[in-house]
Amino acid sequence: MAAVQVHEYNVKMTCEGCSGAVERVLGKLKDKGVQDFSISLPEQKVQVKTSLSSEEILETIKKTGKEVKYIASHN
Amino acid sequence: MAAVQVHEYNVKMTCEGCSGAVERVLGKLKDKGVQDFSISLPEQKVQVKTSLSSEEILETIKKTGKEVKYIASHN
Repeated sequence: MAAVQVHEYNVKMTCEGCSGAVERVLGKLKDKGVQDFSISLPEQKVQVKTSLSSEEILETIKKTGKEVKYIASHN
Repeated sequence: MAAVQVHEYNVKMTCEGCSGAVERVLGKLKDKGVQDFSISLPEQKVQVKTSLSSEEILETIKKTGKEVKYIASHN
């Protein structure tokens, strides 16, 4: 399994309904590769601590229908 | 291919970002079984004219992370 990293994304969220939707989708990946995540509505930022690739997480967030852009990964 | 029906759902959407997300996800199914759809944010209602089953559409909307409930289908 790949090393655990934190992937960071810019996600267009305009209300708590938007951020809640992202939260539910990422929550489903808990114990399936996602260890932890944080969502900031004011900063339009999502950080995901995971052994999954940045591309896999990107695809997951895209499924919400939100506009999402990959920013960076770090350890 | 199955007959075309209109499936109706109650979807929890709190802003235009929410309804826009549902719109993008359903829009991807245009010409892939979905003929047309309408989304009402004030009524929290989504109607989909499609040859796909109500269950397939339900799963698609669920991927957005929104709370969704199937209401009914009609011709």
